[in-house]
Amino acid sequence: MTLSPLDSLLTAPLLTTTAMQSVFSDHARLAAMLRVEAALARAEAAHGLAPPGLAPAIEAITPAQLDAQAIGQATALSGVPTIAFVKAVQALLPPDLERAFHKGATTQDILDTALILQCRDALALLDADLHATIAGFNAMARQHRTTPCVGRTYGQHAAPITFGFKAATWSAGIADAADRLPSIRKTLLVASLAGPVGTLAALRDKGPAILASFAEDLALATTPIAWHTRRARIADAGTWLAILIGTLAKAATDIAHLASTEVAEVAEPYLPGRGGSSAMPHKRNPVSCTVILAAHAAAPGLAATLLTAMAAAHERPAGLWHAEWHALPALFGLAAGALHEARTLAEGLEIDPARMRANIDLTNGLLFADAAAALLTPTLGREAAHQAVENAAAEVRRTGRPLLEILAPQGIDLTPAFDLAPAIAAAAIWVDQVAPPPP
Amino acid sequence: MTLSPLDSLLTAPLLTTTAMQSVFSDHARLAAMLRVEAALARAEAAHGLAPPGLAPAIEAITPAQLDAQAIGQATALSGVPTIAFVKAVQALLPPDLERAFHKGATTQDILDTALILQCRDALALLDADLHATIAGFNAMARQHRTTPCVGRTYGQHAAPITFGFKAATWSAGIADAADRLPSIRKTLLVASLAGPVGTLAALRDKGPAILASFAEDLALATTPIAWHTRRARIADAGTWLAILIGTLAKAATDIAHLASTEVAEVAEPYLPGRGGSSAMPHKRNPVSCTVILAAHAAAPGLAATLLTAMAAAHERPAGLWHAEWHALPALFGLAAGALHEARTLAEGLEIDPARMRANIDLTNGLLFADAAAALLTPTLGREAAHQAVENAAAEVRRTGRPLLEILAPQGIDLTPAFDLAPAIAAAAIWVDQVAPPPP
Amino acid sequence: MTLSPLDSLLTAPLLTTTAMQSVFSDHARLAAMLRVEAALARAEAAHGLAPPGLAPAIEAITPAQLDAQAIGQATALSGVPTIAFVKAVQALLPPDLERAFHKGATTQDILDTALILQCRDALALLDADLHATIAGFNAMARQHRTTPCVGRTYGQHAAPITFGFKAATWSAGIADAADRLPSIRKTLLVASLAGPVGTLAALRDKGPAILASFAEDLALATTPIAWHTRRARIADAGTWLAILIGTLAKAATDIAHLASTEVAEVAEPYLPGRGGSSAMPHKRNPVSCTVILAAHAAAPGLAATLLTAMAAAHERPAGLWHAEWHALPALFGLAAGALHEARTLAEGLEIDPARMRANIDLTNGLLFADAAAALLTPTLGREAAHQAVENAAAEVRRTGRPLLEILAPQGIDLTPAFDLAPAIAAAAIWVDQVAPPPP
Amino acid sequence: MTLSPLDSLLTAPLLTTTAMQSVFSDHARLAAMLRVEAALARAEAAHGLAPPGLAPAIEAITPAQLDAQAIGQATALSGVPTIAFVKAVQALLPPDLERAFHKGATTQDILDTALILQCRDALALLDADLHATIAGFNAMARQHRTTPCVGRTYGQHAAPITFGFKAATWSAGIADAADRLPSIRKTLLVASLAGPVGTLAALRDKGPAILASFAEDLALATTPIAWHTRRARIADAGTWLAILIGTLAKAATDIAHLASTEVAEVAEPYLPGRGGSSAMPHKRNPVSCTVILAAHAAAPGLAATLLTAMAAAHERPAGLWHAEWHALPALFGLAAGALHEARTLAEGLEIDPARMRANIDLTNGLLFADAAAALLTPTLGREAAHQAVENAAAEVRRTGRPLLEILAPQGIDLTPAFDLAPAIAAAAIWVDQVAPPPP
Repeated sequence: MTLSPLDSLLTAPLLTTTAMQSVFSDHARLAAMLRVEAALARAEAAHGLAPPGLAPAIEAITPAQLDAQAIGQATALSGVPTIAFVKAVQALLPPDLERAFHKGATTQDILDTALILQCRDALALLDADLHATIAGFNAMARQHRTTPCVGRTYGQHAAPITFGFKAATWSAGIADAADRLPSIRKTLLVASLAGPVGTLAALRDKGPAILASFAEDLALATTPIAWHTRRARIADAGTWLAILIGTLAKAATDIAHLASTEVAEVAEPYLPGRGGSSAMPHKRNPVSCTVILAAHAAAPGLAATLLTAMAAAHERPAGLWHAEWHALPALFGLAAGALHEARTLAEGLEIDPARMRANIDLTNGLLFADAAAALLTPTLGREAAHQAVENAAAEVRRTGRPLLEILAPQGIDLTPAFDLAPAIAAAAIWVDQVAPPPP
Repeated sequence: MTLSPLDSLLTAPLLTTTAMQSVFSDHARLAAMLRVEAALARAEAAHGLAPPGLAPAIEAITPAQLDAQAIGQATALSGVPTIAFVKAVQALLPPDLERAFHKGATTQDILDTALILQCRDALALLDADLHATIAGFNAMARQHRTTPCVGRTYGQHAAPITFGFKAATWSAGIADAADRLPSIRKTLLVASLAGPVGTLAALRDKGPAILASFAEDLALATTPIAWHTRRARIADAGTWLAILIGTLAKAATDIAHLASTEVAEVAEPYLPGRGGSSAMPHKRNPVSCTVILAAHAAAPGLAATLLTAMAAAHERPAGLWHAEWHALPALFGLAAGALHEARTLAEGLEIDPARMRANIDLTNGLLFADAAAALLTPTLGREAAHQAVENAAAEVRRTGRPLLEILAPQGIDLTPAFDLAPAIAAAAIWVDQVAPPPP
Repeated sequence: MTLSPLDSLLTAPLLTTTAMQSVFSDHARLAAMLRVEAALARAEAAHGLAPPGLAPAIEAITPAQLDAQAIGQATALSGVPTIAFVKAVQALLPPDLERAFHKGATTQDILDTALILQCRDALALLDADLHATIAGFNAMARQHRTTPCVGRTYGQHAAPITFGFKAATWSAGIADAADRLPSIRKTLLVASLAGPVGTLAALRDKGPAILASFAEDLALATTPIAWHTRRARIADAGTWLAILIGTLAKAATDIAHLASTEVAEVAEPYLPGRGGSSAMPHKRNPVSCTVILAAHAAAPGLAATLLTAMAAAHERPAGLWHAEWHALPALFGLAAGALHEARTLAEGLEIDPARMRANIDLTNGLLFADAAAALLTPTLGREAAHQAVENAAAEVRRTGRPLLEILAPQGIDLTPAFDLAPAIAAAAIWVDQVAPPPP
Repeated sequence: MTLSPLDSLLTAPLLTTTAMQSVFSDHARLAAMLRVEAALARAEAAHGLAPPGLAPAIEAITPAQLDAQAIGQATALSGVPTIAFVKAVQALLPPDLERAFHKGATTQDILDTALILQCRDALALLDADLHATIAGFNAMARQHRTTPCVGRTYGQHAAPITFGFKAATWSAGIADAADRLPSIRKTLLVASLAGPVGTLAALRDKGPAILASFAEDLALATTPIAWHTRRARIADAGTWLAILIGTLAKAATDIAHLASTEVAEVAEPYLPGRGGSSAMPHKRNPVSCTVILAAHAAAPGLAATLLTAMAAAHERPAGLWHAEWHALPALFGLAAGALHEARTLAEGLEIDPARMRANIDLTNGLLFADAAAALLTPTLGREAAHQAVENAAAEVRRTGRPLLEILAPQGIDLTPAFDLAPAIAAAAIWVDQVAPPPP
């Protein structure tokens, strides 16, 4: 278990990805902190505030040389991992470089900038899966552009659509989240170098120049004023991750239902051993959907934590900065796991068009009730047409006779209402807008 | 009370604005629904699917002609207000136009598009207050660009900054939210016209053209496929409102503390009767901060609801669409109230530079400990310098003697460390980046 | 609309109950505040601190005599409705009684105690529906104690149970919440009378005695120390409401699925006009489930607000007390609406045992795979038995042939595995524990 | 870092306790799962359904013999850790016992019952710290029963109280949570043994008896029907943990403010190295409060996840059970860390009565304005008295002259209003109710 299942040997392989775990490992964090200190040293050296040898000396140190456990013990005392980290690194530096180390920076600069470097790697991981997932669902939309299937509202059969229309809705939904990725990168990937109270006073008038060099070294942007307690970018990234998971959960909700025994229009990709049951050998559980929907149940609460944490007092709050630690990496972990499973679905969902067709016929024509009412409306008026169809629908349910037959006495040719072609054509229009035919 | 204090005669004037209440009133909703139906009629008429007289006939109907209470009773049966609304409007239309009304649309099209029109008005209200608030804090930053005050971390005095630097942090924080307003408008302000299952099948191949006309009539954008169950735009808008409130809460947290009796560096703008106490006549409570911080405590939970609601099943969910109603208008109401109060603060905060100066001296020089350590470092090394200052700080606390005096035996001239000028200069750099001097 | 749909003429009749709206109306709030002031006057009179005529004079005042709108305008200034309320009441009292009014109390005492009186009424409303709902599902459990139906895990058919077992699970789940009602009443229904900073100093040593009289007059309990900023009871009540809604949502989730077109084992109670569609006359949407599931999506966020609000500073916080107003009444409103619909389901759900039986047969015996594996295990061993069944299941899916037939070559009589009787008997055991047969 | 900071070598020592980490470690989980399987074997053996040697054979296996990493890899396929666990244990059992293992149980039975065993250990850890914390604050209340200090509302000085009154408020607040611990234990500590669909059908009519033996073996209670998808007990425990953290956060909010530089009435217990700053050697940051307030910012969102997860479909949901894993252990981890720090504060807070007295005098008598108004009321009437005091207060603020002097012209002897004794006596009454004098 561990306190988060995302960190457990037993459950992490199910719920997140190894790659995302690596991005946020203690080792990666220490590596990022070293990277940040080296960039600081280089930026200060460029402006004459640090010896040129400092940056290379820092870069010669590896995370493995730092005792994470000892740093953790010291963190319990000081409240932040940076102080012990600074001492530990200094102990590994040549004595003449020691005192130039970490000059002008504050605890939060190092931790926040290291976090941003980790976030950059994390976003790159998501990016790849995000585009593959959208591409997968787009291909599915294309392939099933005219495969008729039932449209469902409130859990009830409503009117015919195509399966491609469903897949296009999923891909367009996920694309809504993907479209924001560049702007998330733009606002999130910024350096923090502001010193104890945000003014970078120790660097005097060289502050902005050193900040610029520092950020350039790390390929990050800068902000016009410290963001130590200006946390919209963190809340924005976190809510975006929750929204991304939400778009996946929309697809997973649909797929889990379509894969249910009575509907059986799709099945999760077959992998030997996948979705088995300890008690029921015949079961094939929708494991991918389970992972996605679990992530979706957890993400809103974590996003709420990041929103709450925005009210950070003065130049550093007593609690609300630490609160972010409880939520942001976890959201990346959930998103990675959910997206990995969504990609699996997008690339390998088993689709059963015959069953889709059979389900359309399940209600003896009720699915075409809307179209029938439309055909009756010019003659009967909207309300009377609706009433006639509502009465006929009740009889279909009672007797199992086809709707077309029951409506025959109306004396209007309703056959066209039971034609799937218009519904298919209408659905295909939108599929083409989302997943256009290849040129 | 009412079930929300935002709708109560007793508390709404405190917690939100009359203008925002109007935007989301039942009357405004019915007006928006009529507006949407008229646009639909006009769009269909343009493509030969509705009589030209329908749109004007709809536009002749006012919300006051509709019995909201009766529609509400019918809503309790049908589950959505649209059905009763449609019947009520039809009863007011000339009989020959009745059956052409609401053609091809579904319940959700009307309600969602009406909601979007209300959101547009709501965003316009926020926009005005948003820019005034930023302008107010920027002017404050400019005016107090070099007014020294204490920088505080973890509630403790840390090092000197300027009050203008604080105000610039507030305005830059709020600007982080404001910067996203255009993109929120772009993604949120879209028409919904997709019919019962999202394919607009009733309009056959004229669907896209009528959607385009409909959206143009309402000055809204369109989406490439129905967004009935693709709700990122709603979640995005809702989380943005929560983030906006969060940026205001950052300022309110600071201001409430600065206004506290012991600190007393600022006071909320004086209004006769403001912030009084039923028991304590001398009190002047920070009412604006109270409203903002209450909104901030409520917003994350409402945003979480919108995130949860994203997992909307198939072509319309049984619950998760309705769930949005519980959260989105409330977030606008909270944001309006909080922003109104923030603007009051930005435009009228009473600032006491003398008290700020006095608080700097409160700790007998400890505020300059960081600078003193920096001056000692070249000689003693970083760690020994820190240790010396830490020891001296303990003595300052014990004896009340000035830090400069206690550190004198170190034999290094530390007077420059106690000079406020560098801290002021460093702070001013960033103020200039956020609130540049007028040209 | 209004800012909450729970207060809208158009949607409140769907989403909550008129009775609960009344409990939290502005009128009811003013009535409760008057009631609290009268109790205070009577308690103080009993201890010689108020004239005996004060309480009757207060009781002669009705909410209708108070101008709620004017009080609201004054609230916008002062930050709480009490100050203007006190002045308005004083203006209606005989001049000689005026100055004895509201003696020793603070704003929060009046508002919190009035809120508690409203909560008491609200809990009484829930209590009635709660017990009727449990009784309804228990009767259903009893009636369908041995009605076979499919057990489903992960959306897949798993093994047979009975419909009574499902209904017993719903009633036992709701009873989990109902069981806590007495303890919620015990901790929540307490008087607040503590004065400006919680010590009731104005009443000197008579404080505890007057508090006791005051509470007794209102039939409330007392606490050993002020609860102005000790808000566990509010958070506890709010999270309990969310848990109650959660237990209803479990039932609604199941019922909405059972009512879906492909499953069709139940239907929501028929009411003329219920669940109709503006576009699809044949639809019968699960409106009750929709209301419950919408409430469930909104409740966790509101509960989170009450949890957040617990960190109330010192003797009264600047924001976190007001934050409760945004959440607690709304939770009562959601719970009332959800429970009303749950009661409707419990008392009138349409159940189709024939369809349940048909669905059992839908998978050609796969539902009995677990039992078949159990019969094979003594001979083949657990793993081989599971493997044999897994292989057979695959063949059933491919060919549509019955599982029993496919497993025949194993040479073991598996007929008993396909007998429903043991599953029914096993289910009935637990039904009897939850809903015992009448004596 | 890891994906949760509660699992990180670098930060867990700060944010939670080693003991709580151990309770929820992978090792402890495997041990609990083995313990559950042994209890099942013993219960089945007692009723003739398992060989007597099975339980001892299971008990001979240690978690170290199981390859957690391999189980995790298999979990990624199957969706739950139980299947691979069962196979791994079977491989370690004598072949003749293998097939009797895990009989009748389902995946969720083993995981949920193991979780409950872990929760029992976790509650025991909290229990100890909870009582020590309450005792500590009670002793503080007793010791400072009559130590005058400022009462603050909305961040403003309001009227005098005693520091003991504050401490009693903290202890009573935490006791509100502690009082529910027995009922939490009663509802949470229940066994799960219900089989694939909750009816325990594989055990036929012996189900209830074996469940009883199984539960007794584990010293757990039973429920009348399966709780696989009846999750109020989980949500209840989780929200209780959030409420507990909320009661600690109330104290931490107060203490962090009292420890702020301008107020300086308390300081966190001194530990060498505690609360240091990487940049500011003189700082003494409130680390305990920081940890508690960070936990409080994170807990409501996690509690919301557990509330959301209650809507578990049918006999096992696809996602909402897994969602609990993301929240419940984390809440225990947060509670343990927060409570550990609260105990540190309760047992060692440094208190400065002289500074408390000095802060009372900070406002030149304004703190007694309420008492002065009360003395003036009999002569002037309430409103005029309030007005006189409000005017005088304004003059005090402007001139710095004492309130008593400014009110002198009123011609009433107001000296008694400036006597602290009544406020102290009033406060002491409530201290005695919460923390009575030793007999």
